[in-house]
Amino acid sequence: MQEIVDFILELEKLKGVTRKVRPLGLERYENSAEHSWQLAILAASLARYAESEIDINRVIHMLLVHDIGEIDAGDTMVFVEGGWEERKAAELAAVRRIFGMLPDSQGEPFLALWLEFDRAETAEARFAHAVDRAMPVLLNLNNNGQSWRENGISYERVVRRVAPPIKAGCPALWSYLEQRLEEARLKGIFGA
Amino acid sequence: MQEIVDFILELEKLKGVTRKVRPLGLERYENSAEHSWQLAILAASLARYAESEIDINRVIHMLLVHDIGEIDAGDTMVFVEGGWEERKAAELAAVRRIFGMLPDSQGEPFLALWLEFDRAETAEARFAHAVDRAMPVLLNLNNNGQSWRENGISYERVVRRVAPPIKAGCPALWSYLEQRLEEARLKGIFGA
Repeated sequence: MQEIVDFILELEKLKGVTRKVRPLGLERYENSAEHSWQLAILAASLARYAESEIDINRVIHMLLVHDIGEIDAGDTMVFVEGGWEERKAAELAAVRRIFGMLPDSQGEPFLALWLEFDRAETAEARFAHAVDRAMPVLLNLNNNGQSWRENGISYERVVRRVAPPIKAGCPALWSYLEQRLEEARLKGIFGA
Repeated sequence: MQEIVDFILELEKLKGVTRKVRPLGLERYENSAEHSWQLAILAASLARYAESEIDINRVIHMLLVHDIGEIDAGDTMVFVEGGWEERKAAELAAVRRIFGMLPDSQGEPFLALWLEFDRAETAEARFAHAVDRAMPVLLNLNNNGQSWRENGISYERVVRRVAPPIKAGCPALWSYLEQRLEEARLKGIFGA
């Protein structure tokens, strides 16, 4: 029991990992813990639109743990171009450390979920990635492009980075976003 | 698709509902969105200790949505003594409004999960309640009793309020907490 308690208290740190987007109506930046919660509900709401048949429960478990590596490695915006291999290695070391706080029979399934998400090969992982990429786009579309503007991200860069994973995991969501992004381009809410 | 998007953006507001406890190491108060994320992982980690056999996936779904009524009603500390019926009615109206933003085939299962949690009659709901009551206790035990002190909550009041639901849903967790609470009483980290 003490191992589980130590693990859950270690997860406190994810509440202090900040992302680049601000929650609608709030001044502060979003943190990775509340982001993970929202992704789990978005996935549950979108399950019927997945590209192929999925086990939604595994998707939800995956989304709950997918950002835990940021506890040691921090959050990196999806538009940063270099250094992904180093960051992935740092996140892997982090999740090995953190899930390693649990007895093997519990830590290993969590690690397996994190790795499945990271590899993005299963239908569940692809759907989870689609949801993860779509959520900050939805926020920016309703936030006057706040994190795109603050970080100098162009329309082309958004589409290039988010279209392939969203299309691969949840095509109907991409059809919706494609139109909204085009409207946003005409309104001029991008950063470059 | 637009209904799902409107729903998920409405959930943004839960990131702005603050609770009485502060995340370890942070000055600000915890919000109900990040709290829901942490409960889902705590439940997954503790599943084997549930009082009876449970469907952990339903528990996780339940915990993800259990606080959504606070979007209209706000968070109320579990130690507040009166007015629970009014608050429950306000939360029920809120979840009917918010889950009602979705097509019925999606909104109704969410509402059913919320009601199941609220009624606390199934093994899954009892386990979810145990986890929900235990998490702020774990934080206070590691935070020098911060929210107990700030709100004048005594050792006796904590035990009276949290022992029955935690014992009912997760007896092994209560055995652990009972000892930690006794140690905390001797250290004098309560508020009255």
